[in-house]
Amino acid sequence: MIAVDWGTSSFRAYRLDTDGHVLEQRHATAGLLTCGGRFEAVLAQHLEGWNDRVVVMAGMIGSRNGWHEVPYVESPAGAIEIAAGMRAFEAGALPGRRLFIAPGLCHRPDAGQPEVMRGEETQIVGLADVLAGDAPHVVCLPGTHSKWVTVERGRVVAWRTAMTGEVYALLRKHSLLAALMPADAQQDADDEAAFARGLAASEGDGGLTHHLFGVRTRGLFGSLSPEQAPAFLSGLLIGHELRGLRPPHASAVHLVGSSGLVHRYQRALSARGVSTRCHDETLAARGMFHLARAAGFS
Amino acid sequence: MIAVDWGTSSFRAYRLDTDGHVLEQRHATAGLLTCGGRFEAVLAQHLEGWNDRVVVMAGMIGSRNGWHEVPYVESPAGAIEIAAGMRAFEAGALPGRRLFIAPGLCHRPDAGQPEVMRGEETQIVGLADVLAGDAPHVVCLPGTHSKWVTVERGRVVAWRTAMTGEVYALLRKHSLLAALMPADAQQDADDEAAFARGLAASEGDGGLTHHLFGVRTRGLFGSLSPEQAPAFLSGLLIGHELRGLRPPHASAVHLVGSSGLVHRYQRALSARGVSTRCHDETLAARGMFHLARAAGFS
Repeated sequence: MIAVDWGTSSFRAYRLDTDGHVLEQRHATAGLLTCGGRFEAVLAQHLEGWNDRVVVMAGMIGSRNGWHEVPYVESPAGAIEIAAGMRAFEAGALPGRRLFIAPGLCHRPDAGQPEVMRGEETQIVGLADVLAGDAPHVVCLPGTHSKWVTVERGRVVAWRTAMTGEVYALLRKHSLLAALMPADAQQDADDEAAFARGLAASEGDGGLTHHLFGVRTRGLFGSLSPEQAPAFLSGLLIGHELRGLRPPHASAVHLVGSSGLVHRYQRALSARGVSTRCHDETLAARGMFHLARAAGFS
Repeated sequence: MIAVDWGTSSFRAYRLDTDGHVLEQRHATAGLLTCGGRFEAVLAQHLEGWNDRVVVMAGMIGSRNGWHEVPYVESPAGAIEIAAGMRAFEAGALPGRRLFIAPGLCHRPDAGQPEVMRGEETQIVGLADVLAGDAPHVVCLPGTHSKWVTVERGRVVAWRTAMTGEVYALLRKHSLLAALMPADAQQDADDEAAFARGLAASEGDGGLTHHLFGVRTRGLFGSLSPEQAPAFLSGLLIGHELRGLRPPHASAVHLVGSSGLVHRYQRALSARGVSTRCHDETLAARGMFHLARAAGFS
């Protein structure tokens, strides 16, 4: 089978053997934003030469702005409930294929803040072997919108999202603070010392919007260089995310994401005495394999 | 004399009588950003017909990106220290005038976050008559960068800044949340109920970047309309500012700013049982009058 992790800004396809091991993978920048709605053609192009019949997709491709909107499944939910919510369809440009899009999850409390995820649930399903036992597990998936997820007996029971990555990008690009940093964010160094200083600053009182102003004043008075400022800002924001969302009594936190980001969260959690286990994003492929098996079509 | 409050995005000139009362005032959009460095010509143009000899200016016009940089004065500081830090100069396009720019204030602790202000100190000097007595007073000047200032015996002794207004503008314009709101921010209604809901949401746990995601999910599930979202967002951000910066034991808070913004902070503080006294921005003119008198040239 083929598993496709298709998000807003990236496209990752995996060809799996009958045990779910990755045989080949392809990455492209063909995220939703760059597809211009031509999902069928883009998929056919990127799967060229891979002739497996079953194609399971997950991520924002199932959102309102994706190919086919697949309604959220209510949590608590595990592989069985998610598999049952998959949408099956066919496409002319991909003859003989059976296409599926996995649903996201939602939580709609009577009062308070609703929650959604789309794509992360598949990575968590991919962690099933690791998240065994009766005790709850905490999984953190850092990114544009970081998720902190509680998993019990293989099912997602609760989670909270923080817009950390998006707020970082906004401040890095458009704010008054951006004027104090090098223009090209692609060149930002992973300055561990500046990151640690930002983390430490996040522990003070005054709140996030107050601490943000400290990026400016430290720059004004020369205690933070333009090159150090991005990592300091990142430390501030991740520190505040942990202050707000880190559950106090979890054992090791499972981190899932790209290596650079996972490494930052690992350092931030370690500074708070929390141990971590790291997993990379190919978990999504394994999750889609589990979903296909749960649905009975692989 | 003439007092000019000259900031990044606005220009306000006041003509004062010998008791410091405002005789006439002129507002223009000739802030630093739109002047293109032509400060002398812009000032001459906007003062046309006002022949008073002494012109005192305050605000970002004294910053590194202004007309002449005037070094910050270290706090604690009151009218006397600020007046002593003013910079005097002349300009060919304004013959016979004595021009002055007031300095800003800074606080540079050995450890922790430095603070600066430029312009607000002049408004606080303008409040001198009100801030009498030995007890400390708390003055809040909401805006792009809100200031919470402690004043003792007429002197600024400490303050903290929160980038609330700037973060609001970034999120309102550039974030994923902006896509859920009406395009034109100028038309945002002052929706008191939505603002109150945002305030209440800020009291929950999880932190600011978590609560921001709630603007999106409430929109997704229909419990927050596009028209309500901006006021809700404003309530969230102001609520977090108050959580972080509101000194716990102050008596009434003095609010200084434009009427719309002051009204929002008044509601937010009132929801926390804190009484307020409101003052408008013409205080800057009165402050410059006091500074001129303290310096002995009016």
